[in-house]
Amino acid sequence: MKSIDYSLYLVTDSSSYEEQEFLSAIEIALQNGVTLLQLREKEATSRAFLKKAIQVKKLTDQYHVPLVINDRIDIALAVNADGVHLGQNDIPVKAARRIMGPNKLIGASAKTVEQALEAEKHGANYLGTGAMNPTTTKVITQITSFSTLTEICNAVKIPVVAIGGISKENLWNLKGANIKGIAVVSAILSSSNIQVTTQSLAKEIQELLIENQNIR
Amino acid sequence: MKSIDYSLYLVTDSSSYEEQEFLSAIEIALQNGVTLLQLREKEATSRAFLKKAIQVKKLTDQYHVPLVINDRIDIALAVNADGVHLGQNDIPVKAARRIMGPNKLIGASAKTVEQALEAEKHGANYLGTGAMNPTTTKVITQITSFSTLTEICNAVKIPVVAIGGISKENLWNLKGANIKGIAVVSAILSSSNIQVTTQSLAKEIQELLIENQNIR
Repeated sequence: MKSIDYSLYLVTDSSSYEEQEFLSAIEIALQNGVTLLQLREKEATSRAFLKKAIQVKKLTDQYHVPLVINDRIDIALAVNADGVHLGQNDIPVKAARRIMGPNKLIGASAKTVEQALEAEKHGANYLGTGAMNPTTTKVITQITSFSTLTEICNAVKIPVVAIGGISKENLWNLKGANIKGIAVVSAILSSSNIQVTTQSLAKEIQELLIENQNIR
Repeated sequence: MKSIDYSLYLVTDSSSYEEQEFLSAIEIALQNGVTLLQLREKEATSRAFLKKAIQVKKLTDQYHVPLVINDRIDIALAVNADGVHLGQNDIPVKAARRIMGPNKLIGASAKTVEQALEAEKHGANYLGTGAMNPTTTKVITQITSFSTLTEICNAVKIPVVAIGGISKENLWNLKGANIKGIAVVSAILSSSNIQVTTQSLAKEIQELLIENQNIR
């Protein structure tokens, strides 16, 4: 499997966009520092999801950014995406690994050390942990504490990405956690200037990751 | 691929059932003449769908009835179902065949001769055509006429199954169409006596299929 840069991981939310606007927004983000992209479409029909995945795959290929599909292994296989991201309501990692084989990237959401170890054991390549902050893009039942995040980072060998309402303003709250990157939705996609915001977030996360390495 | 008996094809609707009641209803139907089962779960999360598919697969294996999963190729692969059924809003047959390989059963919904020929061309194994009557289990935009059904049956070489509000009362309206079976939801699952209803439908459809063969 190719080496993945998790530092600035964009998870999409197309609900507030027209089709072409959405693709333009994604393209600007890919041009300005996003290192990994997850296409997330919770409301679309399978056919509409597939159509969007084909369009987005063209962009991620063009900018050499890996593409991960949320939830739907079949869509990921249909567009030959790099992998899937699986939440706790999606197909379990173990079954996903069996279907997808050893070479696809499988990410899993983990809110607890137990979930993290379970996912790692069954072949997840990375974990998404959060929500670290309140967020408008998902119904959040509980905020993940900084100490839970660090416990998860210390419990597993696979990379951990922090997610949930992360922005330039609260990024440094993650200082000292052994994360490999941040995942954002609205910080980029709800920004009035996606170019500037993405560049700025890409720069800040690099500084944070270096600072975190120096701490340890 | 094993030979499939399409004569009495049950498509599930679990929305009005508790979990155990649902499995009991399916089991009675499988014991009393259903020849093919499609698990259809339009509202469930992927994990809940998978869980139900695992439970239903145990029953279909026990009664040697093939299992088809509606829409979700990943769920079908995860439980090693016999195949999938794809509507016009699902992943297209061509992509599905690529993902699933040559040995899985792929059914497609076709309301027109054009859709039927397209699905057959890309590797569908059978077609579901309807809705032949008004139905309560799906939002129907248009009723398929008997003449469209017969046109589709005559246009393709693959088996055609009629669907949509079919019951013992209106079954003989399908006399003269070269169908290989009927697909039902509520005729069986909303019946107050699933055992008797299934046996009776199984008997009637055999008589209809024989009569149709005699006509041609």
